[in-house]
Amino acid sequence: MKLCILGAAAGGGVPQWNCGCGQCILARAGSPRVRPRTQDSVAVRGPGSGIGLLNASPDVAVQMARTEDLWPRGARQSPVAAVVLTNGDLDHCLGLLSLREWQPLVVYATAAVRRDLCEGNAMFRTLERFPGQSTWRTLPLDREIALGDTGVLVRAVPAPGKVPVHVRRAPSVEDNVALVLREDGRRATTVYATAVGRVDPLRGEIERAACVLFDGTFYRADEIVALCGARAEDMAHVPIGGPGGSLAALAGISARRVYTHVNNTNPILDAESAERAAVEAAGWQVAEDGMEIAA
Amino acid sequence: MKLCILGAAAGGGVPQWNCGCGQCILARAGSPRVRPRTQDSVAVRGPGSGIGLLNASPDVAVQMARTEDLWPRGARQSPVAAVVLTNGDLDHCLGLLSLREWQPLVVYATAAVRRDLCEGNAMFRTLERFPGQSTWRTLPLDREIALGDTGVLVRAVPAPGKVPVHVRRAPSVEDNVALVLREDGRRATTVYATAVGRVDPLRGEIERAACVLFDGTFYRADEIVALCGARAEDMAHVPIGGPGGSLAALAGISARRVYTHVNNTNPILDAESAERAAVEAAGWQVAEDGMEIAA
Repeated sequence: MKLCILGAAAGGGVPQWNCGCGQCILARAGSPRVRPRTQDSVAVRGPGSGIGLLNASPDVAVQMARTEDLWPRGARQSPVAAVVLTNGDLDHCLGLLSLREWQPLVVYATAAVRRDLCEGNAMFRTLERFPGQSTWRTLPLDREIALGDTGVLVRAVPAPGKVPVHVRRAPSVEDNVALVLREDGRRATTVYATAVGRVDPLRGEIERAACVLFDGTFYRADEIVALCGARAEDMAHVPIGGPGGSLAALAGISARRVYTHVNNTNPILDAESAERAAVEAAGWQVAEDGMEIAA
Repeated sequence: MKLCILGAAAGGGVPQWNCGCGQCILARAGSPRVRPRTQDSVAVRGPGSGIGLLNASPDVAVQMARTEDLWPRGARQSPVAAVVLTNGDLDHCLGLLSLREWQPLVVYATAAVRRDLCEGNAMFRTLERFPGQSTWRTLPLDREIALGDTGVLVRAVPAPGKVPVHVRRAPSVEDNVALVLREDGRRATTVYATAVGRVDPLRGEIERAACVLFDGTFYRADEIVALCGARAEDMAHVPIGGPGGSLAALAGISARRVYTHVNNTNPILDAESAERAAVEAAGWQVAEDGMEIAA
C-alpha cells in the first residue's frame, strides 16, 4: 500500500490568502524553511487498479494535476475509484464540486455527513447531471470495507470532532471519523486521523498501527485565540505541545508517525524552529505535499 | 486601470482532472504548445488602494498565492476590496468558500444569483461567522457603481445566459451579466464577458470599448456533443468559429480583443493549431494565466 500526501495543510493552506505572518511570508518567498502546502488530502494505492482519495480538498485540481498517479488513463477517465470523507468540513469536502465534469464518482461518507452536504446544499446537484454520476455509499462505523477496486480495506472509527461551522444540528458520533487502512491480505495498518479532539479514543488503534498520520493543526492550544477567539480544543483539534498535547500523549508508540493537516500558524512548519526540532527529536515527521509513504 | 487574468480557462481548467485528450496531455507534460490554465477570474486595479476580483474561481487560492498584487499588506489583511460575480456557475462562485478565514469580504451579485447561492446552500454560512464577515451588495443592471475603494467603476449589463446546473427555477434577466469597467475619471471601457449565449445584445458595448475579454469557451458548436450531448449554445456559450460564431460577428471592431474562459477542448489553446492562427490573424489574443492588460 502506498500513501501520497496530496496536501499537508489545514484549512486555508500555506500560505493562507489573508495571512501576512512570518511563516506565510517565507512560504510566498520560496524559502526552503517553510514550504507551501495545500489542504489536507491523501491518495492511497493498493494492489488493485483504482486509487482512493481520503478527503477532497478545495485544492484537489492542482493536487491531481501534479500527481502522475492520478492522471487519466484514457481519453475521458479518472483512476480515482472512490473518495472517502472523514467529516463535513469545507476543507475536506469542497473539492467534490471540482470533480464534476461528467465523470462518475463514488463517495463514502457517514450518513450524517452525506445528509449535511447533499440535503443542505443545492450545489451538489451538479454531481447528479446523469444517472450514476455520483454514487454515495454509507461509510459504516467500526466495520472494515473494501475501497472500490483499490485493494485497500478501510475502517472508519469515531473520533472526537465537531459539527461543521455551517451546519445547524446536534452533534453526532458520525460527525468525524479516523480511518484505519490496510492492504488487502496484509495485517499492517495505517491510521489517518487529521481532526482529533482528544487522543484517548484513538490510542489503541494507533498503538497497533505501523503508521499514523495525525492531526498537526496547532502546536499550542491558544495559537489562534487572538485571531478568532477560539482555542484548539474548541475546533476539535488536540494541540501538539503542552502536557495535554499529542506529543506527550503518544510518546512511546512504535508506529511511523507523521503530523499533517498543519495550520499556517503552527511553528513546526518552519524547518528551523524549536518546535520542529522538538517533534523530530520525538521521532515525528512533518508532512509535505507530495510525500510518499510505503505502508 | 490594470487587469490581470488570474485564470484563463473555462470550468474544469487545463488540464482537466478527468481528460486525457491531446491538449490536456501536452499541458501536463509542460509543453509550450498548451500552457496550463486555471479557471476564469480577473483582478482589476485602479488608482484606489483596493483590488477587485471579477469572479471567484475554485482555483482562487493558487491564483492569489502566485499574484503579488493580491498578497496581504499586513499581518491579517487582504487587498481584495470586493468580488463581483457575473453569474452563479460553480466555476465563478466556488472560490468564495475558499475566502473564509475570518476575513471581511464584500461580494457584488445580482439578487437572483445571491439568493441561489445563500438561500440554497448552507455552506455559505461559513462566511457568516461574525457580524460583517460577508457583506453582499446587490449588483444593479445597467447602472454604474464604484467598486469599493479600487477607483474602478463597474456597470453590469444583462447577457444571454442560463440558470446554473444546480438551480431549479425559471430563467431571469439577472442570471448572467457582462461587466463594463472603467477607471474613475476616464472614458475608456473594458468589457468582460465570459459567458455569452449570443453576441448581438453586447455588440454596442463592445464597439464602444477599448478592450474586450470575450467568451472563448468553445471553437465549434458541437465540440463537446460527444462528451455530454450538449451543444455550445445549450450551455450559453456562443462558439468562436463558424458563420454564427463570435469571430465573424465581431469582425471589424477596434477594441483590443482577448478570448478567455477557454475550455480544455478548444483548439485555440494549442499555439500550433490552425484555429489559433485564425483568431490571431483576426487580431485576437488568447489569454493565459498571469496576462496583464493596461486598460
